[in-house]
Amino acid sequence: MVGGGQLARMTHQAAIALGQSLRVLSAGPDESAALAAADVRIGAHDDLAALRDLADGATVVTFDHEHVPTEHLRDLVAAGTRVAPGPEALVHAQDKLVLRRALAEAGEPQPAWAEVRSAEDVSAFADAHGWPVVLKTPRGGYDGKGVFVVPDTAAAAELVERHGTLLAEQRVAMVRELSAQVARSPFGQVAVWPVVETVQRDGVCAEVVAPAPGLSDELATAAQELAVRIADRLGVVGMLAVELFRTADGILVNELAMRPHNSGHWTIEGAVTSQFEQHLRAVLDYPLGSTAMTAPVAVMANVLGGAAAAEDWAGPGLDERIHHLMAHWPDVKLHWYGKGQRPGRKLGHVTALGKDPAAVRARAVAAARYLADGVVDPAFAFPTEH
Amino acid sequence: MVGGGQLARMTHQAAIALGQSLRVLSAGPDESAALAAADVRIGAHDDLAALRDLADGATVVTFDHEHVPTEHLRDLVAAGTRVAPGPEALVHAQDKLVLRRALAEAGEPQPAWAEVRSAEDVSAFADAHGWPVVLKTPRGGYDGKGVFVVPDTAAAAELVERHGTLLAEQRVAMVRELSAQVARSPFGQVAVWPVVETVQRDGVCAEVVAPAPGLSDELATAAQELAVRIADRLGVVGMLAVELFRTADGILVNELAMRPHNSGHWTIEGAVTSQFEQHLRAVLDYPLGSTAMTAPVAVMANVLGGAAAAEDWAGPGLDERIHHLMAHWPDVKLHWYGKGQRPGRKLGHVTALGKDPAAVRARAVAAARYLADGVVDPAFAFPTEH
Repeated sequence: MVGGGQLARMTHQAAIALGQSLRVLSAGPDESAALAAADVRIGAHDDLAALRDLADGATVVTFDHEHVPTEHLRDLVAAGTRVAPGPEALVHAQDKLVLRRALAEAGEPQPAWAEVRSAEDVSAFADAHGWPVVLKTPRGGYDGKGVFVVPDTAAAAELVERHGTLLAEQRVAMVRELSAQVARSPFGQVAVWPVVETVQRDGVCAEVVAPAPGLSDELATAAQELAVRIADRLGVVGMLAVELFRTADGILVNELAMRPHNSGHWTIEGAVTSQFEQHLRAVLDYPLGSTAMTAPVAVMANVLGGAAAAEDWAGPGLDERIHHLMAHWPDVKLHWYGKGQRPGRKLGHVTALGKDPAAVRARAVAAARYLADGVVDPAFAFPTEH
Repeated sequence: MVGGGQLARMTHQAAIALGQSLRVLSAGPDESAALAAADVRIGAHDDLAALRDLADGATVVTFDHEHVPTEHLRDLVAAGTRVAPGPEALVHAQDKLVLRRALAEAGEPQPAWAEVRSAEDVSAFADAHGWPVVLKTPRGGYDGKGVFVVPDTAAAAELVERHGTLLAEQRVAMVRELSAQVARSPFGQVAVWPVVETVQRDGVCAEVVAPAPGLSDELATAAQELAVRIADRLGVVGMLAVELFRTADGILVNELAMRPHNSGHWTIEGAVTSQFEQHLRAVLDYPLGSTAMTAPVAVMANVLGGAAAAEDWAGPGLDERIHHLMAHWPDVKLHWYGKGQRPGRKLGHVTALGKDPAAVRARAVAAARYLADGVVDPAFAFPTEH
């Protein structure tokens, strides 16, 4: 797996059960997966020699992020390496303009969009769809980076000057965000999980509620079918997350991830087969596992570096906070990534299971906030569900 | 963790979620845990220098088996290393005579027993309790090794000659075998799981059914309380499995394991907190997690090297058998240990969850037999539960 982040770390955990071991290409020895995996190569994801070394003797090469240059992947494939997802599929998760063109060709629902190279292009787009316009760098963005909400032509001009070609999108009147995850094997077998609601804060995933509360069966099925159609059409092998905007009228595709995804962390405890195991099954060409839920409701809450990750933090240290977490919420499952603490960084997540969405969510959020900020929000103080 | 077997492998998996990484002392680089852990030291469990190297910088030293010499552990403790369980507790899982004496002193239920040093001692024991007599080597036995069912004085004489001092036990008229698992922290917190039924074949654990079918609440509680009393009295830190004989009259203690145990593998999927995570929480002095079950019934079936592990096996290979397993039982969870295949060796296990004990057990057993022997027992052909 290219990339030594938490996705690789959790994929290694799943690999252990399958009798496998993940070889990880990690940018450094202190990356999340490098601390836990048996076979770690230190190198850059855009260094062809490092990629070739990773591929040497491996069954298949797969990814914990989308940033490997497409030409390097084509090079590996030409040399006989199995790469999953393949470069022709993966490019749709790497390049937002390529994705928009493919979805348009397929007639799939998405926001109005245009490729823009000048302030005039943006201005023309705004004439048709109104201000503000959302401008996105086609490549390299994640967790809200590379996304700009632009109020006028002057702001647009500055961005186009700095970044060159951009993707312009209509700002969607969104009710909420959903994610539909599907795994697809080279054989063409697909497996979908229940559609989830994702709650973003400052462009970063904060919480995921499975299944999405109050989502109609019709819309849930439509989202799952949409994810399967995209996986099939693009020839995805492995996990695909389709991030969706729920609007008053229906659903629109926001973007894709072709790897285990933050919106699927709940599946570790909340589904019979986790996204990490399923990704491995798919890229290794094994039959896929059951995606049935293990409880009526699962909620995942991210722990982002908060007050307790600040340099001047004088409250309880991490170890003490973990003690308190375990004492107060003995049924909440902790996943700590082993990274250095920095404000805003994804340091871990927690998952709670239960029956009542509001109670489960309160439990997960309270636990995550306590780890992040070292204080208990009175509104979420030690909620329990019986 | 001393020992590189599957228990260390699965403990490393649990450690990853806690933000930890297990350092493993493994007899060789191809041991189960050595293939999956990030920090592997190759060395023998009875080599004091190797143990000291393992302990250097570690938070705590713990075990995947009972075979570390007690004097080495005392040496580590004297040098300031935290060892959990400590040598004074662990000796009760290492030496069956020490255990029998301690249980007698505590007044806990156990089979009639005696320390025997001669054929005459065995004969006198048999006069009181009848033939056959069960003779056990006090140390070093596991999976039925070191246990002898002796019909007469001549056979006893031969064993005493070969082994020296032995433990003699009355052969118990046993209805079935049970196991009660408890975790205990240095703080004294304890957590128990439901009492399970263990099914042995040729002295080796074959299946575990959780909870033990048809066990009365009274007896289940009595077994849990017995396990807690033993853990407290012996000062166990970490996991304790109390293997029990169910007789017509009640329960008797067979033996103890002070580590994650085969009778608790079902907890990975079947309980909120697995025995592996709980062992880590306990030895790291964290609060213990919920032991609630995630489904009404969980059944674990071991995969022992069978027909398909023989040298002349001409049927489907391991990879093909895993394919078939996954295709036919998409809800059965596989745990493959990555070891070389040999007949009789514990190579992996499977776990199934559900509502009906008979149906869940049939599914788990069929899947395990298929992996072991490469054939589907018609009596267990692809059972499903709806």
